[in-house]
Amino acid sequence: MNKYWNKKINQATPYVAGEQPRPGQKVIKLNTNENPYPPSPKVAEALRSFDTADLRLYPNTNSDIVRDAVAAVYGIERKNVFVGNGSDEVLALCWQTFFEKEYNTGKSVLTPEVSYSFYPVYSSFYDVRCEQVPLREEWRIEPGDYCGKDCCGIAIANPNAPTGRLLSIDEIRMILDANPDVPVLIDEAYADFAEGYKTAASLISEYKNLIVVMTLSKSYSLAGIRMGFAMGDEELITGLTMARDSFNSYPGDRVAQKVAETALLDRDYWEKTRQAIIATRRWVTDELRGLGFTLTDSHANFVWAKPPKKIDAQTLYNCLKAKGILIRYFSNPKISDHLRITIGTDEEMKALIDAIREEI
Amino acid sequence: MNKYWNKKINQATPYVAGEQPRPGQKVIKLNTNENPYPPSPKVAEALRSFDTADLRLYPNTNSDIVRDAVAAVYGIERKNVFVGNGSDEVLALCWQTFFEKEYNTGKSVLTPEVSYSFYPVYSSFYDVRCEQVPLREEWRIEPGDYCGKDCCGIAIANPNAPTGRLLSIDEIRMILDANPDVPVLIDEAYADFAEGYKTAASLISEYKNLIVVMTLSKSYSLAGIRMGFAMGDEELITGLTMARDSFNSYPGDRVAQKVAETALLDRDYWEKTRQAIIATRRWVTDELRGLGFTLTDSHANFVWAKPPKKIDAQTLYNCLKAKGILIRYFSNPKISDHLRITIGTDEEMKALIDAIREEI
Repeated sequence: MNKYWNKKINQATPYVAGEQPRPGQKVIKLNTNENPYPPSPKVAEALRSFDTADLRLYPNTNSDIVRDAVAAVYGIERKNVFVGNGSDEVLALCWQTFFEKEYNTGKSVLTPEVSYSFYPVYSSFYDVRCEQVPLREEWRIEPGDYCGKDCCGIAIANPNAPTGRLLSIDEIRMILDANPDVPVLIDEAYADFAEGYKTAASLISEYKNLIVVMTLSKSYSLAGIRMGFAMGDEELITGLTMARDSFNSYPGDRVAQKVAETALLDRDYWEKTRQAIIATRRWVTDELRGLGFTLTDSHANFVWAKPPKKIDAQTLYNCLKAKGILIRYFSNPKISDHLRITIGTDEEMKALIDAIREEI
Repeated sequence: MNKYWNKKINQATPYVAGEQPRPGQKVIKLNTNENPYPPSPKVAEALRSFDTADLRLYPNTNSDIVRDAVAAVYGIERKNVFVGNGSDEVLALCWQTFFEKEYNTGKSVLTPEVSYSFYPVYSSFYDVRCEQVPLREEWRIEPGDYCGKDCCGIAIANPNAPTGRLLSIDEIRMILDANPDVPVLIDEAYADFAEGYKTAASLISEYKNLIVVMTLSKSYSLAGIRMGFAMGDEELITGLTMARDSFNSYPGDRVAQKVAETALLDRDYWEKTRQAIIATRRWVTDELRGLGFTLTDSHANFVWAKPPKKIDAQTLYNCLKAKGILIRYFSNPKISDHLRITIGTDEEMKALIDAIREEI
């Protein structure tokens, strides 16, 4: 209890991100779902040719060059795109724009019980009541569980994290059709790694209540530049812009905007690196199953794996950490028997498999 | 009224920043208090030598290299520094951390009635009740007006904007001494341009309730990179960090952190450019007074000027705009007889004075 903090901060339980190695520490880092490949080589070029004299001026408030790049990639219009300082900021603004405050309503936003752990944090911080909907067998999200409920909104990660499981476009349609009066947020941070999936952004012209959030941190290999975006009906984008202009008018800096635009438009590099990660995920999944692990068919750049009986998840996590391999262990008892392992390079994953083999 | 927005957004009146010229439009831009000089030449060097492969990884969440640079500049410790995505974000987080929600208290945060117009926006957006304290004669802030009131906090820009007037360190002490039980925020966005003033950061070891906010957008000529910081007792910094981790864990991108560190540590360039702006402000003030304008003795990188009787502020603003010179006019009736004019280069200010001479 600190007397200079308000009640909200005194009661807050903030999000805890995966640990970062100390500067200079040599580790195989498979704990925060970063991309193992560098960003597009065109990014280096963009940085070298950037005119730093321009930095004296405020950036374009809407990050229009990034909006235009997103619009070109997804065949939509600039007015359907909102850009923020990482998809975490975009998600935070969605919570502040679309989901009703608890003091105004008795209704909850529905989210999967096992999902991105920032969702309940946003809910608490922004006074939104949150109902966590249990998953079904094998971490499955049942669309019917999100239909026919008197809620103030829905937020689902697709593919879901940390489970890697995917809802189909038809299942998302089912949720949208059943909830025409409330906003439905689909968080597609990992969707570029899904097989046989087309982004729900293809539905924004049909559904006025759909907002799709994406990030450049994963498939564009730009976690270090902090750029994310939302796609939806123009009115939803206008709402997000009003929230932004009530807290920080210029979230995208000039360099980050240029870097993001450059990476978005290099489609060949994006396709090549995401396919490499999908291929690595396939053999890693097979290898781990061969070692007795239980895994979902992950559609993300990580796998969700339960170790064989002879070793528990926390022990394995600690053993690997001692060997300089960082993966993600969650102490939450609902998921503490599993481990989330980011897909790295083939070389890194071979080192991981070898290290696991020594422990089990 | 949009049915997918919550009540807060449906009722919001966001902040309105000064207009930005269209890309390629040639104007003399004296409307958003940007620095007319480019950032330190070392910034260009830092950008050229930046290893873009690192961008695949999340940045350091606390922007520690920037905290260390701030600590070195102000003779404080890393633990006393918080870094955010521009001082607007830092201010927004202060509102969310330090000032009590209206639904928890009947108390208000006190701010000057004429000041940075984002303060009432934050207050409304974050459910904080705000009492705007009238200024005294000639835009003076009377410290006694902030003493002996049962408030939940105080926020004052020093120098104040758009008036340019300055409270002394002794006056700030008076406010701090009278309010030991509530947080006092001093927003020093423009303090580096004040004459005979030492930042209130010198007081943070004495006052556990003092938070000082600064930006790199003005005196460091980095409005385009979005970096701001707060200085205060370790407990206040911890509170800000908890608020940040409830909304966006990585606000400072890798490039912005490197650029900010570089600019902060180039003290010679900082001193040279801020002195140039102070010198230009002096003769511009004299020139405008000579033309019949009424001006405060501004301590910021702008002047606050009331045109002579023969022309009103809005007309002059429009005439200058037609000539390609952008200055800031506020329609708020309390200040609509004045203009805020950013200090540009000597050449830009000579063009401004010539253009004004033609109109009056």
